[in-house]
Amino acid sequence: MDCIFCKIIKGDIPCAKIYEDDKIFSFLDIAPANKGHALVIPKEHYETLLDAPDVVVNDLMLLVKKVKRALSSSLGAEGFNILINNKKVAGQLVPHLHIHIIPRFSNDGVSLNWKPKRYSEKEIDEFAEKIKKFI
Amino acid sequence: MDCIFCKIIKGDIPCAKIYEDDKIFSFLDIAPANKGHALVIPKEHYETLLDAPDVVVNDLMLLVKKVKRALSSSLGAEGFNILINNKKVAGQLVPHLHIHIIPRFSNDGVSLNWKPKRYSEKEIDEFAEKIKKFI
Repeated sequence: MDCIFCKIIKGDIPCAKIYEDDKIFSFLDIAPANKGHALVIPKEHYETLLDAPDVVVNDLMLLVKKVKRALSSSLGAEGFNILINNKKVAGQLVPHLHIHIIPRFSNDGVSLNWKPKRYSEKEIDEFAEKIKKFI
Repeated sequence: MDCIFCKIIKGDIPCAKIYEDDKIFSFLDIAPANKGHALVIPKEHYETLLDAPDVVVNDLMLLVKKVKRALSSSLGAEGFNILINNKKVAGQLVPHLHIHIIPRFSNDGVSLNWKPKRYSEKEIDEFAEKIKKFI
């Protein structure tokens, strides 16, 4: 499999690793929103969150919490963004599930905001009706 | 507690609800990045991911996956961003833990990118050393 993250896990490509166990791996993003920006990934190759078994998602989220605590303790991060982009259309650059943990500081200039779209009257309820049929 | 999401859960403020059980609640964001943009929240009030027990985080993530599937089936979403902002400094507007699920479509104009910061040589390894001591 020609996956850059699989190669990083195998050690074929170097990385700034911060954690590894038999299932999960974590390292620093080389193009960070802020320094200390970490990625948490499963060692098994899954493309998106939907492809990963629930137990893997649970393991990933437990490590996300640990990494957040470590970023607070080591760098004094005051807040965090947790971001998972699923599929290229959503900005997923590497097709191996990864969770971004971005440490945040006052006036760091990072913005993950969007320009809100507008629902016309009742339209939001129509959307909710349509969506909830499939949950 | 003067929390707008607690009021929504209690039914004191209306919302476009898509799911509810005894622990978890989901509804559509009124200022969406794309129409169908949903929020998944715990009924119990926790400010951030770190404040919520692991079992609650697990329940939330299971529903996130269900909502993603529903957004694909109902709206034809091709991708998704999952975003959790923790603390005001990270853009958290309501201090009640919530997970954004943003459905994505080709050329939808949404961007959650950042301008990458640069590590100087070896600096990324120094950051990794510092952080991993606390994991």
